[in-house]
This record gives sequence, structure tokens and C-alpha cells, in this order.
Amino acid sequence: MDKFLQAAIEEAKKGLNNGGIPIGSVLVLDGHIVGRGHNQRIQKDSSVLHAEMDCLENAGRLKASDYRRATLYSTLSPCDMCSGAILLYGVKKVVVGENKTFCGPEEYLRSRGVELVIHDDHECRQIMASFIQKNPELWNEDIGE
Amino acid sequence: MDKFLQAAIEEAKKGLNNGGIPIGSVLVLDGHIVGRGHNQRIQKDSSVLHAEMDCLENAGRLKASDYRRATLYSTLSPCDMCSGAILLYGVKKVVVGENKTFCGPEEYLRSRGVELVIHDDHECRQIMASFIQKNPELWNEDIGE
Repeated sequence: MDKFLQAAIEEAKKGLNNGGIPIGSVLVLDGHIVGRGHNQRIQKDSSVLHAEMDCLENAGRLKASDYRRATLYSTLSPCDMCSGAILLYGVKKVVVGENKTFCGPEEYLRSRGVELVIHDDHECRQIMASFIQKNPELWNEDIGE
Repeated sequence: MDKFLQAAIEEAKKGLNNGGIPIGSVLVLDGHIVGRGHNQRIQKDSSVLHAEMDCLENAGRLKASDYRRATLYSTLSPCDMCSGAILLYGVKKVVVGENKTFCGPEEYLRSRGVELVIHDDHECRQIMASFIQKNPELWNEDIGE
């Protein structure tokens, strides 16, 4: 298991333990985690802090050259908003835990020059399947449905 | 002048008066402003709270059907991230103060079914031109350059 994907899963679990939607993300720069985050919809009543956004926010204001060397990890395929943030900052590589539960605009990201590595991680899928079964309305809200 | 665009400009000025990047946004639902926001990069050291994101965050957790009836106003053409948020929530109409200072992925938004109304508002352009002349590094940081 990729240790950075594992760190993103730990973020997802941290969110779950706080009553949140279990999606986690880390930002890796030069082999080190420089930001960690998880979905904050419930905990902070937030409509914009998806895991990837929370991670970017927690990473702080980085240099453009840093974003371009960084890799963003997420337990779930990034949605339109998070994909847009990836494009804004020119993050060149994204590692995704799974894209079966939800699949964002991956082809569009590729067309804009982003490398995507898609895993099919059982734990990432399982944690979301369990959450969605118990909280279908919260999940639909999170993806704008 | 469209009163809602005027309200977005007031938000931009509020940001400027607090030392921030002067971009403002409002979200309008059924003829009423339900969210207001402005760029918070400097004030909150935020990498994700562009004006439109701050506005969506301040609007709170709306129903999917509300977002789809809403119109988002911004003093400046939405970047990739803010355009992504518009797509995530299915906001169908966006009114833009100007797109000369910066132009986001407007054609992509249109291809995804979003109606864009682009003004060429002098005040929106002027407030940004003045800010960028004095703070080119902050502006570049805000657009990931």
C-alpha cells in the first residue's frame, strides 16, 4: 500500500470518527506530506471543504512552483470543484483511491495535462459504501444531487 | 447597473478595505441574495476562498434544487476552481462583471450547460487594475502563477 494513500485513508477515518463524510486527502511535496484534510461538510457545515479543498487549505499558501511539483492524493475521485482546484494550481499528478463510488471529470483533467493514477482500493470503497448506506441524503448533498 | 452585480462590487470593495484582493460575489435565489463573499486569500491566509467560494460557503448548505435555480454573480470571470464549484452544484447561470483582467474556462462552462452573462464593467476592471499594479505577486499567487 502506498504510504501516502494510507495517510489519505487515515484522514478519511478521522473524518468518520468526527461524524463526517469519510473522504480524505494529502498533498505531497518532494516526498513529504505538506497538507492533510478531510471532508468538512458536517463538522464545519461547509459546502466547499471537500477533502481535497480542506487539504489544500491546510497546506497553506504555497508557491506556484511547489504546487506544480506536488502530488495530490484523495481516497475518492475528485469532483468538478476539486478538479478545478487542481487545475487552478497546476498540480500535475493526482493519485485516487477509487473511482467506483463516484467518478469526477477524469478525462477533462487528463486533457488539461494532469496525470491520474487510479487505484481500486477495497478499504476506500468499503468506507464509502458503509457511509452512503447509512446516510444517503448527506452523500447526495455532497455531490450536488 | 444590475443591483446584484452592484452588490458583488460592494463585496469586492469590502475585501479591498480589509487589505484583500478586490473580487466579490453574491448568490441570488428567487430574487434575493442568499450568500455574499469576497476573496479571503490575505485576510484568512486562504488558498481556496476565492470570492465565489467564500460566497458559496457563506450561503450555507443549500438544497440541490436551490443551487439549480440560483444565479452566481462575480466581479471577475470565475477561475477553474470556482467554475468547478459552479458545476458541482449545478448553478445554471453566472453573471460576470468583466473577463478582461482574467478569463476562466468560460467555453467549458457553456459546454456543460451553464449560461454566462459577461459584462465589461469599468468599475470591476478599474478596481483590479489598480490592485494588480500595486500587488502583482499577490495577484499571481491567486491565479496559481
